[in-house]
Amino acid sequence: MAAFPAGIPVVIVNYKTYAEATGKRAVPFTEALLRAAAGKRVTLAVAPQAADLLRVSQATRVPVLAQHVDSLAPGNGTGATLVEAAQDAGAVGSLLNHAERRLTLAELDAACARLAAAGLARVVCTDNARTTGAAAALRPDLLAIEPPELIGGSVSVTTADPEVVRHSVRAAKAVHPQARVLCGAGVKTGEDLRRALELGAEGVLLASAVMKAKDPGAALGELLSGLP
Amino acid sequence: MAAFPAGIPVVIVNYKTYAEATGKRAVPFTEALLRAAAGKRVTLAVAPQAADLLRVSQATRVPVLAQHVDSLAPGNGTGATLVEAAQDAGAVGSLLNHAERRLTLAELDAACARLAAAGLARVVCTDNARTTGAAAALRPDLLAIEPPELIGGSVSVTTADPEVVRHSVRAAKAVHPQARVLCGAGVKTGEDLRRALELGAEGVLLASAVMKAKDPGAALGELLSGLP
Amino acid sequence: MAAFPAGIPVVIVNYKTYAEATGKRAVPFTEALLRAAAGKRVTLAVAPQAADLLRVSQATRVPVLAQHVDSLAPGNGTGATLVEAAQDAGAVGSLLNHAERRLTLAELDAACARLAAAGLARVVCTDNARTTGAAAALRPDLLAIEPPELIGGSVSVTTADPEVVRHSVRAAKAVHPQARVLCGAGVKTGEDLRRALELGAEGVLLASAVMKAKDPGAALGELLSGLP
Amino acid sequence: MAAFPAGIPVVIVNYKTYAEATGKRAVPFTEALLRAAAGKRVTLAVAPQAADLLRVSQATRVPVLAQHVDSLAPGNGTGATLVEAAQDAGAVGSLLNHAERRLTLAELDAACARLAAAGLARVVCTDNARTTGAAAALRPDLLAIEPPELIGGSVSVTTADPEVVRHSVRAAKAVHPQARVLCGAGVKTGEDLRRALELGAEGVLLASAVMKAKDPGAALGELLSGLP
Repeated sequence: MAAFPAGIPVVIVNYKTYAEATGKRAVPFTEALLRAAAGKRVTLAVAPQAADLLRVSQATRVPVLAQHVDSLAPGNGTGATLVEAAQDAGAVGSLLNHAERRLTLAELDAACARLAAAGLARVVCTDNARTTGAAAALRPDLLAIEPPELIGGSVSVTTADPEVVRHSVRAAKAVHPQARVLCGAGVKTGEDLRRALELGAEGVLLASAVMKAKDPGAALGELLSGLP
Repeated sequence: MAAFPAGIPVVIVNYKTYAEATGKRAVPFTEALLRAAAGKRVTLAVAPQAADLLRVSQATRVPVLAQHVDSLAPGNGTGATLVEAAQDAGAVGSLLNHAERRLTLAELDAACARLAAAGLARVVCTDNARTTGAAAALRPDLLAIEPPELIGGSVSVTTADPEVVRHSVRAAKAVHPQARVLCGAGVKTGEDLRRALELGAEGVLLASAVMKAKDPGAALGELLSGLP
Repeated sequence: MAAFPAGIPVVIVNYKTYAEATGKRAVPFTEALLRAAAGKRVTLAVAPQAADLLRVSQATRVPVLAQHVDSLAPGNGTGATLVEAAQDAGAVGSLLNHAERRLTLAELDAACARLAAAGLARVVCTDNARTTGAAAALRPDLLAIEPPELIGGSVSVTTADPEVVRHSVRAAKAVHPQARVLCGAGVKTGEDLRRALELGAEGVLLASAVMKAKDPGAALGELLSGLP
Repeated sequence: MAAFPAGIPVVIVNYKTYAEATGKRAVPFTEALLRAAAGKRVTLAVAPQAADLLRVSQATRVPVLAQHVDSLAPGNGTGATLVEAAQDAGAVGSLLNHAERRLTLAELDAACARLAAAGLARVVCTDNARTTGAAAALRPDLLAIEPPELIGGSVSVTTADPEVVRHSVRAAKAVHPQARVLCGAGVKTGEDLRRALELGAEGVLLASAVMKAKDPGAALGELLSGLP
């Protein structure tokens, strides 16, 4: 079954390296998010650190993504995270090329190919409409456009720069008609999610709005209030 | 208790990204090594991928090292492995600066400092006597000199270039008298381990001799036959 | 005037860091190449190291490309090569994303944008048909597909893997109909150039066949014998 | 003759990628600095971009440093700056490991070794006392400690954190008694230079105070007023 069924809005929470969702805290954190999403028509996925994948996938039923996987084949790669290791730890896919872990185009392509061969989902982050178009040529499951200057900020990309979302969707579909695009950066409220969907995105990728919230479950609940 | 008690030879097996010790295969692989080391006067430690740390540390009693941890503080660091994540996954320390994952000097220092603050062991890899001396200034628990041109080869550093081991021990102790040095690259036989100890090293770091062996436990047993 | 006029075959010689074309030796080396190309219907361009750009551009009349420029704006960037510095040193453009200097997709896009804004040519290297298609979305002046496993080898990509050239041309044009594609890796003889043009490429990017030749001018002459 | 004669204070101006000292503007910029230093008992050196080295070294008599050189041997290294290229372009040495271009410990060592073999000076940047001690083991001509959090700021390291300068000098000399240490970050006034020398440093490395000044010559003159 596809990790991200067509037609259902997608919300991915990137745990980054926030202490609140690291190690032993990752499971209760995830459970709070799951309660907030219960019964909603949304595909919620979370992206913990590599060392936390197994813990979260064993203890919860949320689709778990790696934050990054390396493109290399098994063998020599000390410090890398192999696609196979992420998969055995329960990941159904991986973010790739996040602003905090950019990949070369060659690595990005190779990582996409290895994930695809393993039957895992690829969510490729990009920074503008041109790179979204470029990444669409690699045919990932999802693209996620996040203008770097808005990441972690208080104004949602959907308000600060709605055109970048529209143009990214258009650029991606021009290269690959089945492309599906998320947006991110500053996304926080139900209204932000509602506008993202209006602009042609199929959902959002977010971190700080949930990760830095006093009550992460409530923060996610607020966001999900924008679901149609 | 120290991860590497003084006076006891150290053998660290770096699992790298070998398929044989990835994911579900990591636990039986580790158990085979533990059986080979049972009853021997050696501190055996293993270094699985980040995604496999929890699995190995939960299922076995071997000291587990991360292959790499990042130097950054919690927060923004998508794709990184936080010291805290490695620790909660059961790691007692980390390799750092392996030939396949070199760090800048500033990152190496910061990662050492974060590991030390968390009470975790630091095993810093180096490539010659000068860099071993330099790394000794960061006061890691162990240094591991591996001449890059011999890594993965069939001739042990202790035979091919015994002077680099002696000089590395001397350079490290000149900077930090309590420095302890391992050696690696091509290490395979009991004789290789015996010579490493003779040359002033306190043990060995190895990968391919065990990882690519038909019978990894037997390969480790052969190496450990060189223990005094 | 365009650096690479349409309809004229393109041959780019990448000097890499070969001693034979470094520093003072860069000018006589370049002069030998110019003599070999004199009177031929080809756009010959050469790519010396950053420190050699001024020297070559002042002493000769060949179009000079940087091997790499950084994507950052003026200010903080110690060790970087600014587009403006390359331009003032006489470069008419730059290679980008060579196998020995891969860029993240975001950097590649930003470097392309800065070069375009300065009126300089962009020659983007890629490693397969997919990444050629992706890079075409950035609308560089030229793409140069070089399968990494064939680089520096003795068999030309046009013989060893003609399909990768054909597929790259097709992938690039599917994304950007005006895309122009070079090929490289193992290219050496007139026959190699002739087949490159037959396969839909507009020329070749090469290094070792000329750089390691006893007589670089003669080596280039042999290659150019394949011009139509 | 040594690039940095013992007993004479050292002032190095890092041009970074400031537009004011890029390309054609590099020469008049340098001349203004030379006028400010004329007749002063100081070794003034400047570090332009690689593409500007030849221009500055040909037109002026100031010792010119590269901002970075790569550690690799001639051959394959597209986009790199070879030691030999920097030398032929007139550089008498190179900065290494600047905060904006950190090197792995192995690269730093190899670049130092290549520079030393070519008879060129090595100025190694560091970020705290520990890494200064570590880098001293590589025996560079000069170390330059710059706390990253103070770089580009308005308060000099000599005021904001005098202890880091003292400790760095001590850590360096403990490892290599002949070590010579510069300091940098926020350095601007004659008083800043005077205090640097008092704290045991042999001079300063600076950028923004001169690079962003309306009158760079006057800014350097103000700094040099602190010479003994």
